[in-house]
Amino acid sequence: MNKFSTKDTLLTSVQSPIENSGNKVTVVGVGAVGMACAFSILTKGVSNDIALVDCVADKLQGEMLDLQHGSGFIENARIVASTDYAVTAGSRICIVTAGVRQREGESRLDLVQRNADIMKQIIPQLVKYSPNAILLIVSNPVDILTHIAWKISGLPKTRVIGSGTNLDSSRFRFLMSQKLGIAPTSCHGWIIGEHGDSSVAVWSGANVAGVRLQALNPSLGSKNDSEGWGELHKKVVDGAYEVIKLKGYTSWAIGLSVSALCKAILKNTRTVHAVSVLVEGFHDVKEEVFLSLPAVLGENGLTDVIIQPLEDSEKAKLQKSAQIMSEVLKGVKL
Amino acid sequence: MNKFSTKDTLLTSVQSPIENSGNKVTVVGVGAVGMACAFSILTKGVSNDIALVDCVADKLQGEMLDLQHGSGFIENARIVASTDYAVTAGSRICIVTAGVRQREGESRLDLVQRNADIMKQIIPQLVKYSPNAILLIVSNPVDILTHIAWKISGLPKTRVIGSGTNLDSSRFRFLMSQKLGIAPTSCHGWIIGEHGDSSVAVWSGANVAGVRLQALNPSLGSKNDSEGWGELHKKVVDGAYEVIKLKGYTSWAIGLSVSALCKAILKNTRTVHAVSVLVEGFHDVKEEVFLSLPAVLGENGLTDVIIQPLEDSEKAKLQKSAQIMSEVLKGVKL
Amino acid sequence: MNKFSTKDTLLTSVQSPIENSGNKVTVVGVGAVGMACAFSILTKGVSNDIALVDCVADKLQGEMLDLQHGSGFIENARIVASTDYAVTAGSRICIVTAGVRQREGESRLDLVQRNADIMKQIIPQLVKYSPNAILLIVSNPVDILTHIAWKISGLPKTRVIGSGTNLDSSRFRFLMSQKLGIAPTSCHGWIIGEHGDSSVAVWSGANVAGVRLQALNPSLGSKNDSEGWGELHKKVVDGAYEVIKLKGYTSWAIGLSVSALCKAILKNTRTVHAVSVLVEGFHDVKEEVFLSLPAVLGENGLTDVIIQPLEDSEKAKLQKSAQIMSEVLKGVKL
Amino acid sequence: MNKFSTKDTLLTSVQSPIENSGNKVTVVGVGAVGMACAFSILTKGVSNDIALVDCVADKLQGEMLDLQHGSGFIENARIVASTDYAVTAGSRICIVTAGVRQREGESRLDLVQRNADIMKQIIPQLVKYSPNAILLIVSNPVDILTHIAWKISGLPKTRVIGSGTNLDSSRFRFLMSQKLGIAPTSCHGWIIGEHGDSSVAVWSGANVAGVRLQALNPSLGSKNDSEGWGELHKKVVDGAYEVIKLKGYTSWAIGLSVSALCKAILKNTRTVHAVSVLVEGFHDVKEEVFLSLPAVLGENGLTDVIIQPLEDSEKAKLQKSAQIMSEVLKGVKL
Repeated sequence: MNKFSTKDTLLTSVQSPIENSGNKVTVVGVGAVGMACAFSILTKGVSNDIALVDCVADKLQGEMLDLQHGSGFIENARIVASTDYAVTAGSRICIVTAGVRQREGESRLDLVQRNADIMKQIIPQLVKYSPNAILLIVSNPVDILTHIAWKISGLPKTRVIGSGTNLDSSRFRFLMSQKLGIAPTSCHGWIIGEHGDSSVAVWSGANVAGVRLQALNPSLGSKNDSEGWGELHKKVVDGAYEVIKLKGYTSWAIGLSVSALCKAILKNTRTVHAVSVLVEGFHDVKEEVFLSLPAVLGENGLTDVIIQPLEDSEKAKLQKSAQIMSEVLKGVKL
Repeated sequence: MNKFSTKDTLLTSVQSPIENSGNKVTVVGVGAVGMACAFSILTKGVSNDIALVDCVADKLQGEMLDLQHGSGFIENARIVASTDYAVTAGSRICIVTAGVRQREGESRLDLVQRNADIMKQIIPQLVKYSPNAILLIVSNPVDILTHIAWKISGLPKTRVIGSGTNLDSSRFRFLMSQKLGIAPTSCHGWIIGEHGDSSVAVWSGANVAGVRLQALNPSLGSKNDSEGWGELHKKVVDGAYEVIKLKGYTSWAIGLSVSALCKAILKNTRTVHAVSVLVEGFHDVKEEVFLSLPAVLGENGLTDVIIQPLEDSEKAKLQKSAQIMSEVLKGVKL
Repeated sequence: MNKFSTKDTLLTSVQSPIENSGNKVTVVGVGAVGMACAFSILTKGVSNDIALVDCVADKLQGEMLDLQHGSGFIENARIVASTDYAVTAGSRICIVTAGVRQREGESRLDLVQRNADIMKQIIPQLVKYSPNAILLIVSNPVDILTHIAWKISGLPKTRVIGSGTNLDSSRFRFLMSQKLGIAPTSCHGWIIGEHGDSSVAVWSGANVAGVRLQALNPSLGSKNDSEGWGELHKKVVDGAYEVIKLKGYTSWAIGLSVSALCKAILKNTRTVHAVSVLVEGFHDVKEEVFLSLPAVLGENGLTDVIIQPLEDSEKAKLQKSAQIMSEVLKGVKL
Repeated sequence: MNKFSTKDTLLTSVQSPIENSGNKVTVVGVGAVGMACAFSILTKGVSNDIALVDCVADKLQGEMLDLQHGSGFIENARIVASTDYAVTAGSRICIVTAGVRQREGESRLDLVQRNADIMKQIIPQLVKYSPNAILLIVSNPVDILTHIAWKISGLPKTRVIGSGTNLDSSRFRFLMSQKLGIAPTSCHGWIIGEHGDSSVAVWSGANVAGVRLQALNPSLGSKNDSEGWGELHKKVVDGAYEVIKLKGYTSWAIGLSVSALCKAILKNTRTVHAVSVLVEGFHDVKEEVFLSLPAVLGENGLTDVIIQPLEDSEKAKLQKSAQIMSEVLKGVKL
């Protein structure tokens, strides 16, 4: 038998491998949403270097092992996981999906405070170990929590982004595609504002091949519309509730949506996505709050915001959302 | 306002679109395993035409909606779902992940009978609606259930395949990669036989760049091996148990493994995979049972089986597994 | 030594593999354009089953071998090639890139006749061996030759498509992206009509995130526009000439453009592309000619045409192009 | 009309986009090989940030434009090009494909000197603008030129790599696949040593599913082999000559091969590839020369070399190649 090990006989080391690649992505929270994000990123080839963090050690270890067992199928991905944030060091993006759900009888503000407290634990750790990362907040209520994460992080507003209505827009395009019988990616429509009940469908911009649907049906999206386009927006707003009612939670679509945002950042694509950004000063919003607007993303995060010409009623809805956000934020202790 | 609808003004139909594409894949069972299969197939671009079937209508509807909401991110995938198998019509592959788990105090044979009864409901429906499909069985115990599915289906043995030890082999390569510090896809090793406790690690074939590890360490995998390679096989066997203990079920790795098998079939790649096939006549197995051997897959299913030169002890293990399978099968009422 | 061959000892055949997969694509013509099409289709995973046909046997054999040498890197692609069309049997798409270039002193009509004669050799052979295929014509002048191919083929108009202004639209979006500093896929603009000097830029539809650029700059694209957007269309028209002047031919962009069309067909995506279709009856075109309009593609070819609301001057340009096409076609002997 | 430009009205800049992404790759030389490398890297999603350099400004500009025109199809790739190396700044990999071909009557040594002179112009410029890049040399004779590039660069030996016999190994696996009727990626075989006439086929390692072909046919690859396996190696050596004779040059397979190496580096995969590395001290090679051995690649370049147990005749061939390389290098003026 050899006195050297099999490894030493097989391999002659010339230099040590590096641990963290230039494409490392951290996912905080390994619930259904966090894992759908991680799995989408891995299977779609967005990154093959993932760190998972959660406070539930067993579940965390199980998810890591399960992904590792398939690493030969996902570009030899490196999957690490720990309850200790040191494992996230050197990430280029940190995705935050952690958070608690509303308890029975709990007020919305109490929920926000509990999730804010969770952000207070998570964000400083992420910034400590990956000072140059982009923070991508997915936890709900996403607009509020992105604002809180930004405040806690001390990072410039270009580097703290909420997943926002990128998913709502995807749902809207799917519903358009069902109504028109053509592919979702050929259906162009935007949902902006709050990721939630008060989101705004920008009907004036809905188009296929540059043909504005409002040019064909001027009452598109309004109450007078006999074709029921307004139903699509209603279905978008109800979409998450419906999926939660049916399967208990949402996962796949938000995972795919977040994976698309990560691709835009890691590949510096400068593509436009509806994400939650600091909207103060846009569309006459006076408050320092985060809401979704179409925004250009690249390797350094947010570079530009697209100003869509909104109708007065749409602007009013945005401003109303901003005021509500602001009120909620006033009540939160950081 | 137009007298024509927005759709009719926008689009002039030249012919009707076709419903079922030439790449349709059915997944029966929308539990964690079934959904990981479907999601892997969609995100890795193996197919963008998926039908889901399950007997739990709510959960089924929820999973369909959740995938549909992200269809713009997965090649404009068409996702359909129903408790009625008519929705599966024209599939090229039908993946079966449905099945029940062992009850406390239930014998293994009783479990097999319950799952056999489930196959009796599923398989004839799949064959009825997709008479030319390949059946890919994932439900456990996979070797037994693949045999039962084959019998029920009346299909040739080339078109009923069990996911088998393709996953075990992937786990083994990951563990090799950890021990050697190189990529899983550069670590070549095969786990054959039963997908379960009696699987066989083919140590003689384990290699990197064509260098047999046994040439470097002749006791590799044996009890006398001071380097502990045998532990790797033990960890493979324990892998599923460990993940289940930690997170409650396995999903990602089996989903990726099944997705790789589907790619081999749909893309007619003629790649070699360890899958459960009828092994009667191979390695002196006398029984008509299914166990995993390296096999060549293409658009018409199984085309060739690879005969690895096994040591006597390895052959004996295979034959023993075959006898156990045969005994179990004798007790099953079809 | 074995009395059986290595192959027979290694492999036990269970059934013969199938030759032609369900994703077979034929490329006629292995010049720079044909090879860029084939290579894009292979590297982007659109198909891994390609047949090449050309009348120059040496070049054809060389291109086949060169692709085959890399088949391990492109999903174990099967590449076949022959001067005999039997090699194309069972294709789902047949791409025609063959054709001759203008000789010095040759009239345009003479060129068309020579290329029509080439189509007379190619098309019946393709239809004979792949009666269910979609014909995708790339040879120039593409609108004329698509019409001729359609006539010769005897196929329904849904199954003969010209690559048309899909490439011109791609060039336009790149130029928009340069002017605005955002990604080409986030820049929406359409070039329709003739693939050539008389193409039409549909300025009314140019938009980003649903924001019509004409709403921001009403003179966009007109002579009065001080921002020079009209230059973009001019650069699109001159794009091919410029590339040909600089490198001698165009290849990469047309290959990518054709690959995208093949994906839409093979994956049945129902996405919208500007391709050359029979435009008689659309936009008051009276002639039976092919020109590019935004069209919906799926597995059965063309399903729908998108009717963009055009300005009178745009319609007039389309109609003028149609008349010229019609005149040219009258002079061609089929 | 607006007093602001369309762009300024549409977009509100929050910060400037970054120019060079973290995945930038430079390709020096835009001949058939360089462009096949660039196009493979772009279409396979290895990088979407490419800089092209060549001394022929027209051709260079034409290739850049042609790629840019398709950028919407390749992840919104950024393509830059210049005769000035400043354009390459910040690259993570620099691929060198530039070089001249043998003139009639020219000695091989004269050819080497001319290409060495070209390296003297290229390498310092690349190192100046991308001091942290990996150099990937493709120009022929690749083993000699990689050595020269290493010497000129002053970089550690881990960061100067020749594309070597990665392509020869791919050709070998394709030929194995043809002989056995299974996929190239399931056929494992290695060609090492010189990328050229004196390359070594490591017959002892040739295997399928871990089954050594020599175990089935002990005379595999030798003169006594009645099955003609030795012909495969002969065809590998003749492969490039044959393709050049038929189509004038090789391009696709080398492009795919180089793209695979870039993926290993950019994705830090730690996969094993046959590439040209400093072999002094391996297999009793005494000379400071570059030849191909299986090597582990990651983000920091070469990390490990795999030592295959070679037969004496194979070692002797390697040592002979090393001596020839060394002789050639002695005659080169740096």
